[in-house]
Amino acid sequence: MTIFALDCAGATASAALLCDGVLLGESFTHVPLTHSQTLLPMAQELFSNCRVQPSEVDAFAVTNGPGSFTGVRIGVAAIKGMADAAEKPCFAVSALEAAAYANRHFDGVVCAVMDARRDQVYTACFQNGERLTEDKAMSLADLSEELRAFSSAVLLAGDGTKKAFEFLSGALKTPCYEADEPLRFVRASSVAFLAAQKLEAGESSVPAGKLLPLYLRLPQAERELNNKQKDLQKKEHTK
Amino acid sequence: MTIFALDCAGATASAALLCDGVLLGESFTHVPLTHSQTLLPMAQELFSNCRVQPSEVDAFAVTNGPGSFTGVRIGVAAIKGMADAAEKPCFAVSALEAAAYANRHFDGVVCAVMDARRDQVYTACFQNGERLTEDKAMSLADLSEELRAFSSAVLLAGDGTKKAFEFLSGALKTPCYEADEPLRFVRASSVAFLAAQKLEAGESSVPAGKLLPLYLRLPQAERELNNKQKDLQKKEHTK
Repeated sequence: MTIFALDCAGATASAALLCDGVLLGESFTHVPLTHSQTLLPMAQELFSNCRVQPSEVDAFAVTNGPGSFTGVRIGVAAIKGMADAAEKPCFAVSALEAAAYANRHFDGVVCAVMDARRDQVYTACFQNGERLTEDKAMSLADLSEELRAFSSAVLLAGDGTKKAFEFLSGALKTPCYEADEPLRFVRASSVAFLAAQKLEAGESSVPAGKLLPLYLRLPQAERELNNKQKDLQKKEHTK
Repeated sequence: MTIFALDCAGATASAALLCDGVLLGESFTHVPLTHSQTLLPMAQELFSNCRVQPSEVDAFAVTNGPGSFTGVRIGVAAIKGMADAAEKPCFAVSALEAAAYANRHFDGVVCAVMDARRDQVYTACFQNGERLTEDKAMSLADLSEELRAFSSAVLLAGDGTKKAFEFLSGALKTPCYEADEPLRFVRASSVAFLAAQKLEAGESSVPAGKLLPLYLRLPQAERELNNKQKDLQKKEHTK
């Protein structure tokens, strides 16, 4: 069983090939370039370096959010295209679950945080590899309140780590740490291992056509459109 | 400060670029190909994907052993060539230290093991990122004896993990674990972070010309030559 996984939901991009539990290869970049420039060449090189053909892949996996709207769309579109061409199933993995996965041996709560701009983060908490809270968008102040309910140390992971740490360190009752740099960001290997777990647990995959991004919030353009429409309705109401 | 690191001392090959504490990119492969085929294309793609020129690198790092004799020679030769052309210093990092580095948060002893064939491993132990024993070649029976002296759990990491685990599990007084697949093998990112630590601690680098492999044992050809010479001496002595 060969799984090809991609992630570009946040500040970093990565690709991985997992074959029967062995990580055949992984590429990772953290550079200020749009993922549309880096992702596909990286995927192509990975296949070539591992001497694997895309037609040999049995299942495709991608982080379908939450994270950067553009990044999520690029990753989901790429996997949809590849899986559709290969007529193989897809697994959607939460970027937060993937960020926490590489740090699952931490003795305490792993709080995954992806930068959602506007003083917000997408976040979810995990402990010993088990999910404690659902993926959601919230302010750092609300997250601080939520984390104060836990009695154990907190490890932050994900591309919102630095921003969250600045706000949270000192605000919690328990020690708060930042994940080490190499494990701070989502790794496609984590996405591949999580997809393999889902497969083993009998969770159903989706056909390429049904793979959808998970935004948790409306895109900024839609939020602005909604606000404009509300304003218009108010004006009409007060006419 | 930009550090370029390579590893191909064991079963896997990887390359990484670290810039001021940020991992710009990493490539990793675990495929049954000689490292001479995979290493240089992987390094070239990494530079290209990270938009970094080899001339921008301030220091080069490589695992100079212990491990596969051929692998160590390929990695050391590649870094010697690059560092010599760029006239930049080199750091040699122990493959065992690099294998242990990614697992340094394990609560117990991290025993790094590289396959040395002939029922032997290259091995060294670490705890909380501190070295407990020197790099050496020993039989699994001797390693088992050494590990029984520790009162804490043991985590095996490195390309000899599976072989060592089969021998050691059940033979120790404390629990023995295998490092998780994604962190089991040496990662060039670990090599780069260890080189950065050496630099910060004021440890001196070496010029490319002075970078040497660390074999710990004589290559098989030399061992066989020595045995033949001893046999000849015996024969002449008994004539």
